Amino acid sequence: MSRVNVAVLGATGIVGQTFLWLLARHDWFTPVYLAGSGTRREKIYGNVTPWRLPVEMPESIRDQPLHALDLDECVDSGARIIFSALPSSVAADVEPALKKKGLAVFSNAGAMRHAPDVPILIPEVNPEALDHIHEQGYPDGGFIVTNANCSTTGLAVALAPLREFGIKELFISTCQSISGAGYPGVPSLDISDSAIPFIPGEEEKIASELREILGIDAAIFSTCVRIPVRYGHLATVWVRFDGPVGREDILEVWRGFRSEAVTPTTPPHPIIYCDEDSRPRPDMSFFGDPPGMPVFTGRLREREGLIGFVLLVNNLVKGAAGGSVQNAEFFLQKAGDGS
Amino acid sequence: MSRVNVAVLGATGIVGQTFLWLLARHDWFTPVYLAGSGTRREKIYGNVTPWRLPVEMPESIRDQPLHALDLDECVDSGARIIFSALPSSVAADVEPALKKKGLAVFSNAGAMRHAPDVPILIPEVNPEALDHIHEQGYPDGGFIVTNANCSTTGLAVALAPLREFGIKELFISTCQSISGAGYPGVPSLDISDSAIPFIPGEEEKIASELREILGIDAAIFSTCVRIPVRYGHLATVWVRFDGPVGREDILEVWRGFRSEAVTPTTPPHPIIYCDEDSRPRPDMSFFGDPPGMPVFTGRLREREGLIGFVLLVNNLVKGAAGGSVQNAEFFLQKAGDGS
Amino acid sequence: MSRVNVAVLGATGIVGQTFLWLLARHDWFTPVYLAGSGTRREKIYGNVTPWRLPVEMPESIRDQPLHALDLDECVDSGARIIFSALPSSVAADVEPALKKKGLAVFSNAGAMRHAPDVPILIPEVNPEALDHIHEQGYPDGGFIVTNANCSTTGLAVALAPLREFGIKELFISTCQSISGAGYPGVPSLDISDSAIPFIPGEEEKIASELREILGIDAAIFSTCVRIPVRYGHLATVWVRFDGPVGREDILEVWRGFRSEAVTPTTPPHPIIYCDEDSRPRPDMSFFGDPPGMPVFTGRLREREGLIGFVLLVNNLVKGAAGGSVQNAEFFLQKAGDGS
Amino acid sequence: MSRVNVAVLGATGIVGQTFLWLLARHDWFTPVYLAGSGTRREKIYGNVTPWRLPVEMPESIRDQPLHALDLDECVDSGARIIFSALPSSVAADVEPALKKKGLAVFSNAGAMRHAPDVPILIPEVNPEALDHIHEQGYPDGGFIVTNANCSTTGLAVALAPLREFGIKELFISTCQSISGAGYPGVPSLDISDSAIPFIPGEEEKIASELREILGIDAAIFSTCVRIPVRYGHLATVWVRFDGPVGREDILEVWRGFRSEAVTPTTPPHPIIYCDEDSRPRPDMSFFGDPPGMPVFTGRLREREGLIGFVLLVNNLVKGAAGGSVQNAEFFLQKAGDGS
Repeated sequence: MSRVNVAVLGATGIVGQTFLWLLARHDWFTPVYLAGSGTRREKIYGNVTPWRLPVEMPESIRDQPLHALDLDECVDSGARIIFSALPSSVAADVEPALKKKGLAVFSNAGAMRHAPDVPILIPEVNPEALDHIHEQGYPDGGFIVTNANCSTTGLAVALAPLREFGIKELFISTCQSISGAGYPGVPSLDISDSAIPFIPGEEEKIASELREILGIDAAIFSTCVRIPVRYGHLATVWVRFDGPVGREDILEVWRGFRSEAVTPTTPPHPIIYCDEDSRPRPDMSFFGDPPGMPVFTGRLREREGLIGFVLLVNNLVKGAAGGSVQNAEFFLQKAGDGS
Repeated sequence: MSRVNVAVLGATGIVGQTFLWLLARHDWFTPVYLAGSGTRREKIYGNVTPWRLPVEMPESIRDQPLHALDLDECVDSGARIIFSALPSSVAADVEPALKKKGLAVFSNAGAMRHAPDVPILIPEVNPEALDHIHEQGYPDGGFIVTNANCSTTGLAVALAPLREFGIKELFISTCQSISGAGYPGVPSLDISDSAIPFIPGEEEKIASELREILGIDAAIFSTCVRIPVRYGHLATVWVRFDGPVGREDILEVWRGFRSEAVTPTTPPHPIIYCDEDSRPRPDMSFFGDPPGMPVFTGRLREREGLIGFVLLVNNLVKGAAGGSVQNAEFFLQKAGDGS
Repeated sequence: MSRVNVAVLGATGIVGQTFLWLLARHDWFTPVYLAGSGTRREKIYGNVTPWRLPVEMPESIRDQPLHALDLDECVDSGARIIFSALPSSVAADVEPALKKKGLAVFSNAGAMRHAPDVPILIPEVNPEALDHIHEQGYPDGGFIVTNANCSTTGLAVALAPLREFGIKELFISTCQSISGAGYPGVPSLDISDSAIPFIPGEEEKIASELREILGIDAAIFSTCVRIPVRYGHLATVWVRFDGPVGREDILEVWRGFRSEAVTPTTPPHPIIYCDEDSRPRPDMSFFGDPPGMPVFTGRLREREGLIGFVLLVNNLVKGAAGGSVQNAEFFLQKAGDGS
Repeated sequence: MSRVNVAVLGATGIVGQTFLWLLARHDWFTPVYLAGSGTRREKIYGNVTPWRLPVEMPESIRDQPLHALDLDECVDSGARIIFSALPSSVAADVEPALKKKGLAVFSNAGAMRHAPDVPILIPEVNPEALDHIHEQGYPDGGFIVTNANCSTTGLAVALAPLREFGIKELFISTCQSISGAGYPGVPSLDISDSAIPFIPGEEEKIASELREILGIDAAIFSTCVRIPVRYGHLATVWVRFDGPVGREDILEVWRGFRSEAVTPTTPPHPIIYCDEDSRPRPDMSFFGDPPGMPVFTGRLREREGLIGFVLLVNNLVKGAAGGSVQNAEFFLQKAGDGS
């Protein structure tokens, strides 16, 4: 398979940085166009980007030019696939425009998530949603595929194999890291040695996106808390099923869970169960194969007919840039399959 | 009313420190005997105690002698009331022995919480539980009164006025501070920039103590998480009632809620509702009147027939030392009433 | 002495909040005019101010109106003394204008610190600097008195009594808290689990202000580091004196050091030495009498003819609002003395 | 070159974990014997080790047996090189005993650092110190080579090329991370939202080890502060040279600095200068090539004839396990050279 040229929009933000860290060492993709919307004229990426990941800026990215976003330039760059880490307000204009120009847009922005025919895709969970791109006009034109909100992504993966038991009610409480709010994001005086029991819009997104992606009609009750941790979103979950389900049932379907996607960024084991009571923990966010892509679960227990557990998702990798990269890979896999 | 001499056992730990901070300025109580179990011979409290509260060590405490715990000395000190911040293993022997010697023991230790006739008392919630001291032999002998686990205390207060609506199911997730684990407690490498989704025994205590104190038979589902915050335990709660209950119903009973105890350490408003979405937050732990004694609630909302909210309790004051001091005051109030 | 009406400008920021916390319980001052520059029309202080101190918003402040800053309104309010926590760019216009209107301005802003005849006053260190207000035209008109930069203040107090030994060289490294940068200040992603070895302009201010306030001509070498701590600036110091000075010499002059100011906010002991090696620490920032006003020193040692020590200053109280309140008190004390 | 079998003693601690992370992917070394002193009988490493690094436990290590340390077993394992992360009290007995058995011991423990003929080796700084192993009896027997204290290592590397200008005085203040204290190490209640201006023995080690390793006779003044950061030690430095030295002189020698060691773990650029004022920062600790091995410097400036700068060293990699691995590689390089 020949390499595919890609563009990254919103390249200097923390999700943009995560895209570039993943793409710099990617076997299929070559980043050829990097755009930061605030940039007035061409600059060098490494000179103007305050890097905020725990993993270093790749050498191959450091000297690339950083462009002010220009749709024609983007098209002319030869990029076939566009990865978008744009703010939602910008994405709402830019992403449809790029689609119109025939490009394949894989977006982390929330802007288009609820547009008709735009799928929220997690290959492990709802691979069939990719088909919606045909309703958008593909292959005669471009399309947009989004990934879910970061917290939703972790929940959707952990819950996907449990759908077979009939999910009736979900009680979710999250402990979300500061990197989920982007940069500058949360002022340190608001979160240092404290916690904030509110993340605007997050609880609504979890409910609506979970129902859409999982294809379930459960009642979902959630509370989202920001905690003073850099990376990784933790969630505590209680599930009421239609009938009796045991701890071993859950462990078995989690163990057997595999993705229809078989691509470089898809984890061979999408869900990793931690036996230790004190895990999963946010300091493990970049663990796993590939790093940051599996969802870690733990503390599985039954109580009065309900099942409780804890999960950890890397909000920047699986929950954002890595999810989009995986979606693009899955699209190419399916295209290569002739599907 | 004449002042009452009191002793503090386990005086150098973080709960012991909280006792002394409260007692040094107390209108009714005079600390006359301070014991730290590890002390070999008499020492000066201020010289051997590494102070860990955000409020300063009171001057009047600094120069008091710190004793190795000796039951006879404790009795001879003239203390009529014993405040215990002992480790549970020590409390299991010491507290019954002091009771036998005719003393009134108000304990923060978990050891005796489930002994027959030993009440877990929160005056705002179950004032009638104080009567159990008569079953222990009072007034012909001493007695033990315990306060609830720190997380339980906050939950019990916030839920107490909601009992009238019929509590059927409770879904609770906590974000607990490191001071709840005492000293040395949680190693910094385990919690710094991370979170631990497990606190041994805590979920069981919340369920059993809540049922006992509230006198309810609800199903209780909880997950306890330690977060990197010094003071204050946050809890996210969803409640299913027997029938339909609205947001305004809850606000009304919270607003009208008062304690039967009318004592210096009892908050005139035991529950304070915060209108701002971003509150309550752990950095408010020592707020309120008296500081650290009210339970703060917020983010009240209805969803598919359930009620969700967030609460904050100061785990060292209301959830530990302050709760015991309030219990002792309530006992004296009732004794003074002739009851 | 009758109470004096005062205004607080920049009242919603973290230094403004500190002013109000101090003034709400002040024996001499009554805050009658609160202004937040961003406010469009009269509002209630407690409703629009996100409180960020570890001590609660005073009840008496909560319901006061918050004004958009208007110089005539400020004058008409009857305030005789103006406390300014304005941003420097605003202070540069507003403070001279208020002075022209005959008001006494005590400012925490850096804007006017280096204007001719405007003293940088720390009563413990350079009480004589207050006389400069006569050069500004007082008593025929108003005047401006500033306090030093927060780090400088702590250093100046600890070094003041050491001047008698002849200070030749100073080597200073600071560990400064996030509250020193105001709000929103430092983004959490820049400082959480990290440190920033640069604070713009801080090293220059330390050198120039220390020389001016202490009246010394020492060589000053400093490096300022931001650390993930909410309150309190720590500094490590090495001093080379003109001749030999011993540890006991230093302890003696620190012990004997008193302020010429004898006012409510002036600490009776401006410097408190901590014997424990692990102190002073930032979590003690609000300790002392009055809280947050003494400078804590520790780890005093001699090495090859130099003296090393560590100090802690509360950057919001002694290093900002408290310093200005103390300056205003000192002015009234001197005025009352007929001086 | 054929692979060399190695042992890791103290394998479960945080430095032991760092050794294993480095060795699991090492081109020359094969770990064949892992010992944790507290282990009673053979266990599986991954089952009993609470992993605390930000990088994941290598798969190849997870299933290795963990032994209780037994000198004969260690010898019989076929390990030729011993990496020691033992506590100093244990190392004082074990390391000489292993040397007597003919083994090459590369130790991170401080125990033997000051024994006669035991070099403190940093290949970039004092490669000639390796020769001392002949005085220990090599090649007729084993030997011990230690690496420096973690803070000292960073300082020694950054100062090594500056020796040519004549270092006369050093003023150092460190901001050290909690991982430097091992596990359980610093209780979270001592360091969370605070800082501790004292690390026992650290200031003395910096002075004595720096003088020995750099071979200089400078006066060294230092203060060591623990800050709430997981990884990386920051130091602020002022240097007085014998004569005038400019900023460009320093940059030039730093740029040109290379190690005599040319081995897998030796950084091709041992010192990396950061142009941005806000760098280096602890969150970059695991950056560089190889990760965690270069020393990062920044904020270089001249002031009244002195040179000031800031540096960052990874206390677990370059400052501990990585330093020992590099020392072992350098020994093999020299042995292979016939020297």
